Amino acid sequence: MLSEVTVPQKGLSDFAPIVGDDVVRELKSLAGKLAGSRVLHINSTSYGGGVAEILYTLVPLMRDVGLDAHWKVISGEPEFFTVTKAFHNALQGMPLSLDEKARETYLRICRLNAEHFSGEWDFVVIHDSQPAGMIRYLSKGGARWVWRCHIDLTTANDTYWQFLDPIVEQFDAAIFTLPQFVPRDLRLGLVKTMPPCIDPMTVKNDAVSRDEAVRIVEGFGLDSKRPILLQVSRFDPWKDPLGVVDAYRIVKKKRPEVQLVLLGSMASDDPEGWDYFERTARHVGEDRDVHLLHNVKGCGNLEVNAFQVLAEVVIQKSTREGFGLVVAEALWKGKPVVAGKAGGIPLQVLDGRTGFLVEGVAPCAERILYLLEHPKEKEEMGRAGRKHVLENFLCTRNLKDYLEIFTQLREQTAAVRNR
Amino acid sequence: MLSEVTVPQKGLSDFAPIVGDDVVRELKSLAGKLAGSRVLHINSTSYGGGVAEILYTLVPLMRDVGLDAHWKVISGEPEFFTVTKAFHNALQGMPLSLDEKARETYLRICRLNAEHFSGEWDFVVIHDSQPAGMIRYLSKGGARWVWRCHIDLTTANDTYWQFLDPIVEQFDAAIFTLPQFVPRDLRLGLVKTMPPCIDPMTVKNDAVSRDEAVRIVEGFGLDSKRPILLQVSRFDPWKDPLGVVDAYRIVKKKRPEVQLVLLGSMASDDPEGWDYFERTARHVGEDRDVHLLHNVKGCGNLEVNAFQVLAEVVIQKSTREGFGLVVAEALWKGKPVVAGKAGGIPLQVLDGRTGFLVEGVAPCAERILYLLEHPKEKEEMGRAGRKHVLENFLCTRNLKDYLEIFTQLREQTAAVRNR
Repeated sequence: MLSEVTVPQKGLSDFAPIVGDDVVRELKSLAGKLAGSRVLHINSTSYGGGVAEILYTLVPLMRDVGLDAHWKVISGEPEFFTVTKAFHNALQGMPLSLDEKARETYLRICRLNAEHFSGEWDFVVIHDSQPAGMIRYLSKGGARWVWRCHIDLTTANDTYWQFLDPIVEQFDAAIFTLPQFVPRDLRLGLVKTMPPCIDPMTVKNDAVSRDEAVRIVEGFGLDSKRPILLQVSRFDPWKDPLGVVDAYRIVKKKRPEVQLVLLGSMASDDPEGWDYFERTARHVGEDRDVHLLHNVKGCGNLEVNAFQVLAEVVIQKSTREGFGLVVAEALWKGKPVVAGKAGGIPLQVLDGRTGFLVEGVAPCAERILYLLEHPKEKEEMGRAGRKHVLENFLCTRNLKDYLEIFTQLREQTAAVRNR
Repeated sequence: MLSEVTVPQKGLSDFAPIVGDDVVRELKSLAGKLAGSRVLHINSTSYGGGVAEILYTLVPLMRDVGLDAHWKVISGEPEFFTVTKAFHNALQGMPLSLDEKARETYLRICRLNAEHFSGEWDFVVIHDSQPAGMIRYLSKGGARWVWRCHIDLTTANDTYWQFLDPIVEQFDAAIFTLPQFVPRDLRLGLVKTMPPCIDPMTVKNDAVSRDEAVRIVEGFGLDSKRPILLQVSRFDPWKDPLGVVDAYRIVKKKRPEVQLVLLGSMASDDPEGWDYFERTARHVGEDRDVHLLHNVKGCGNLEVNAFQVLAEVVIQKSTREGFGLVVAEALWKGKPVVAGKAGGIPLQVLDGRTGFLVEGVAPCAERILYLLEHPKEKEEMGRAGRKHVLENFLCTRNLKDYLEIFTQLREQTAAVRNR
């Protein structure tokens, strides 16, 4: 129950060559006022998924700027995780019922984890719904509690939200990814929105030499001398891989040398994923210039990075999307992205500046062709995209957002005390 | 180390309505002379794979006819199973090297398992290569040791076989599946061959009503009123699923109402399997009358049974095959099988009597069409196929083979004593 996660050391100054000395200085100054603050992050898993990825960077950076930051994960019986998976899915819109037994299991395990809660904290940040219920069983003491919701609640199952809402309202602040994800009926003193972020120094985003990228990409049977169109996404209807194939076919008529890569990640316990993979494969047929790649074939973070580095145009033809952080990853490699207007994509793809927002197959093909035929504009958009990510979607911005929220919460507390 | 597997009770007399009273009587009489014999089977896994399936039936039947039969499985660290998997693959022809560390690991774990060997036995049956090395670390006492090899050794990697051969020669007898699988250099007093077998009373082979089969098959999107061609096999080049699709296309030109089902089983740790599945899917294209099914989509034993029951023609277009027991399963459901001349298939498919042996796509299509257009002959061949399995490939025959080998070994022992 509640075990601490060991994180690597990271130095903020290592990011200076990327973000600039001014940013590093500003962060250190912001953190100075919070020096020694005890911060506890709690989530449900130390490995796998975007939240763990973000904490792996955020917690070391908080420590590096002088906060006493820790990260703990909750635990529970398998049944608990079945229940919390249902919470996760229902809050993203899945029509599930919530029976008495599930409520009871959820609260019982939250209470058990709360009993193992220890230490004195200034800020407790609870990530997503799994550990949220712990707050019901703890006295806050001097701590300010923040709920960080990483998922899209716009189509949340109301039964689940009505159960969670009073729990969330016990917090001092809540953070959502996009303004439209904030539930309308939430009554809370401090509500912030902050997009997710990428760490430019991980294997997924760190510079890969062109030679290594060529070696990797050719290892998967591609010709690195011919243009590559790339979409990195799960094989599911909302990422529209069939539409991407159709757009590629239109492009291919005018530019027969293009190759298409659809790169996803597959889980053995996800039959719908394999089903949609098959549907995509059958739609593709035997065109050897289309490559369907995934983790089971050995395509991991480094390989994704290599494909992004070598791609001529990156596509993200989503019709529904959370934030779509993979777009930021591609922009970071200086690639303009031709993408659907869904979820957080328009924040990243500024139409005509860092890529193109499109609806439908023909416009998608048209924009891809435009980029292929205007290498100068393409390069310029790529530069603008990287700059846009640098200014808005790096982990240093994420650190800054947290430091600002902590500062604001501390000022509130001080104001109350001085009243 | 060496844990006993609990098996269900099975009564030989329950098989009487299928195999006849005479067979049951004969088995009981054979077993009578061995009454009370202590038999220990040892293999490497209690679940998954053909060997475990066979022991699940064989051990209870041995008990039912009066033998004191037991089944134990070895255990070891993950590294041991990596090594034994290499043994298994190399003995089937994979070009792998065998280093000193692998030999040492194999023998060390065999010795550890041997140290946990206990009890007094008349017959010890070791299945496949994983536990074979145990014999090096045990004194046989009064027991006779039998090595049962379930795999095809015709293209065995010689380095591995040379390592295993002296171990096997410590046994009193060895059993192989087909005469051609017996290594030429094996020096052993008693070598037998016996094909594998199916249990007609398991969910895979027990009678399924037509109504239930229709419900299952339609649940996977097929039209039960139109003819179904079926191949049940892994997606790999030696089962030639692409050739099956080509044969289906020829058939489809004359009989546009046919549907094709390729039904396999997929493992998440088998990238080659998923790769070949993708290749098959891409070869199929978007023809909605071709259905690619597998366990991840919920196609298990009962579903295989239902498809076999409803299929018009079953295909097994293998170019390389061990025994191909799935052919016996189809024949058991009264379906003639159009099959490649590989491994144990010609023992099951008697050309022109229980199905057709074919080479190449066009002859395969031709035979499928012949069967579709000659329903009377088809039915007759189906009946002959079921009879052929009844007489040769049921678990009762397997029991008989073991009883005969045990009897022979006991007579040898007696002869030596009387000398």
